[in-house]
Amino acid sequence: MSDIDTLTELFMRFPGIGPRQAKRFVFFLLRQDAGYRNALTRAITDVVSNIKRCEQCLRFAPLHAQKPICNLCADSSREKNLLMVVEKDTDIDQIEKSDSYNGQYFVLGGTLSLTGKKGFIREKELFSHFKKQDSFAEIILALSATPDGEYTTDYLQTKFKEDEHVKEASVTILGRGLSTGSELEYADADTLTQALKNRA
Amino acid sequence: MSDIDTLTELFMRFPGIGPRQAKRFVFFLLRQDAGYRNALTRAITDVVSNIKRCEQCLRFAPLHAQKPICNLCADSSREKNLLMVVEKDTDIDQIEKSDSYNGQYFVLGGTLSLTGKKGFIREKELFSHFKKQDSFAEIILALSATPDGEYTTDYLQTKFKEDEHVKEASVTILGRGLSTGSELEYADADTLTQALKNRA
Amino acid sequence: MSDIDTLTELFMRFPGIGPRQAKRFVFFLLRQDAGYRNALTRAITDVVSNIKRCEQCLRFAPLHAQKPICNLCADSSREKNLLMVVEKDTDIDQIEKSDSYNGQYFVLGGTLSLTGKKGFIREKELFSHFKKQDSFAEIILALSATPDGEYTTDYLQTKFKEDEHVKEASVTILGRGLSTGSELEYADADTLTQALKNRA
Amino acid sequence: MSDIDTLTELFMRFPGIGPRQAKRFVFFLLRQDAGYRNALTRAITDVVSNIKRCEQCLRFAPLHAQKPICNLCADSSREKNLLMVVEKDTDIDQIEKSDSYNGQYFVLGGTLSLTGKKGFIREKELFSHFKKQDSFAEIILALSATPDGEYTTDYLQTKFKEDEHVKEASVTILGRGLSTGSELEYADADTLTQALKNRA
Repeated sequence: MSDIDTLTELFMRFPGIGPRQAKRFVFFLLRQDAGYRNALTRAITDVVSNIKRCEQCLRFAPLHAQKPICNLCADSSREKNLLMVVEKDTDIDQIEKSDSYNGQYFVLGGTLSLTGKKGFIREKELFSHFKKQDSFAEIILALSATPDGEYTTDYLQTKFKEDEHVKEASVTILGRGLSTGSELEYADADTLTQALKNRA
Repeated sequence: MSDIDTLTELFMRFPGIGPRQAKRFVFFLLRQDAGYRNALTRAITDVVSNIKRCEQCLRFAPLHAQKPICNLCADSSREKNLLMVVEKDTDIDQIEKSDSYNGQYFVLGGTLSLTGKKGFIREKELFSHFKKQDSFAEIILALSATPDGEYTTDYLQTKFKEDEHVKEASVTILGRGLSTGSELEYADADTLTQALKNRA
Repeated sequence: MSDIDTLTELFMRFPGIGPRQAKRFVFFLLRQDAGYRNALTRAITDVVSNIKRCEQCLRFAPLHAQKPICNLCADSSREKNLLMVVEKDTDIDQIEKSDSYNGQYFVLGGTLSLTGKKGFIREKELFSHFKKQDSFAEIILALSATPDGEYTTDYLQTKFKEDEHVKEASVTILGRGLSTGSELEYADADTLTQALKNRA
Repeated sequence: MSDIDTLTELFMRFPGIGPRQAKRFVFFLLRQDAGYRNALTRAITDVVSNIKRCEQCLRFAPLHAQKPICNLCADSSREKNLLMVVEKDTDIDQIEKSDSYNGQYFVLGGTLSLTGKKGFIREKELFSHFKKQDSFAEIILALSATPDGEYTTDYLQTKFKEDEHVKEASVTILGRGLSTGSELEYADADTLTQALKNRA
């Protein structure tokens, strides 16, 4: 196998990349100057060396100099007794960008699967997190509004009630209804039902 | 202009239909038997004769035999003191299909436009409706979650406060948040802000 | 079933129209004035009365006053000994718009199907056409460059060789190669092979 | 700027990659094991070291051990007096995959631009290539069937006539017509004109 094919196959593992685009990446790299290519390999190496899982929220981030936690977990100005459980690292970026939350995070790593295939959540890590932390007044289960997300939300709500560290916490889910920009004509029945129930 | 072109141009005025599909409609009709074509022209005539604007909610519908109102407005089992204001006739179908509402309706006919172009609402008809009806305990402004929809909602809320017949009514809007099926990763900042604010 | 539902279901048989758009057509008609609606039903009736299958090329068209043939078949300035066989009526419009052909047409009505389902061509009518007409110097099989189109082309070429009226005719197919606007990068192997074979 | 942002920005320069997908690439890399990440950086380095521009056809490829040319240019079984001029390296892959050509190649590097913006071709290199090589019996200008491609084809045809090394060569372009899978109904007028002209 040629070096072009080797690199093409490695790029094909990138999320959402097929053979044609993978090959285009290779020729793109060949046409770049050494400056860009060195910057790229260095940046890959740097990311791997400097970005680690925060031991508290479990997201990938540059860690604090003294403690193995990220800047959000280390930020003493953030509310300590409010926890948001999200599926993915990038969900935290989305929430932070919306500038509407100032509490703690925990990255669940995925959802359970209703159909049984490849579901995964960091359940053990979540409950051991509860044990180590001060108790939370509120836990927001900010999972996707999909069947798998709702199934996982139900599952965790049941588990929380049985756990001595969080059974007193208020457990909430994100508001459901019309998303920004949506018209009634294209809304599904379930969204309309939620939007009506949650009218205010 | 040939008869084919004449009919093609008339079909091109149908919403969302371009010249190619309009012409395909014409050839489709030519290939159908007389039974279908007669059913079609008869159904067009029937719709026009039998479907009128309900004088109460202003939607197009078959009207009651004795009174010029539709079956929803005539239905005495529906709550009388709850009104939902929607933009379009088809919005009522959507809400009815969701089976989550049992009050009255009013079709506003559109929204105001922030940019000034072609905005339209049945404002006069709405307030004269308030004058004629018994007072409403709640008015739900079920407009689109778009800039024009929100602008119209704001406008009407202000007007309601000044109107003697509805100033006591509770005025609500549909719940905002994650729509069914949506993932955090693809949600916009405003939807996330609303979803967080409306968590429950 | 209400008149709205009846008309909606009839519109749903239009090619490419689903339930949502069919209903939108109905409400569109309700909002139009009587002038448009009358023009529409009249145009449907007119198309059906005035547009017939040309007895020569079998396309739908307004027929000549004296003879049951269309304007193209009646046009004595068009080449008589050149025939193009197409699948659909609208294919003739496309060819005429390109202004690159001045012979006769025959509408085959479809293609045979390689998978056996719902294939249809006017084979009998085509060969009886050959019997009635003066002989053609060239017959262009202008069918789709799809598996079904090519299968039909092969089938007809074989049949032509066995038919006493056309076995002397030159039988051609449309040129194959890069279509206008296409780039090599997105061309499939077969198109490239044809484009190379047909280079000039 | 964090290491995540640095790498995200470098991935954003990849062809067709926006900020969201670039960031997804970064998190994808963080989740991979060291084996994959090392293979990737090594493959990038290897491609850069081992893949060079062939001095004859100017495509990127592993070069011959003794001579600075690629395997296609070094292959003595390929026809020597037949040259195909293509826009991009990947065009050669496409042609080779179609298994319908066995001559020489030259990568032009792009097309001239009708609108004047960022057009580029290796004109000087092409003519100096003609000077160095034995004369070609045929030169195939295999450029895109786009306005820029056709403009470049016209430009080179004129230049070829004035060049003493190629003015005797037969200059051809790829066949134009229906591409595989296309139907007449969706073909544009120019493609139909070409398909008719090139019928066979």
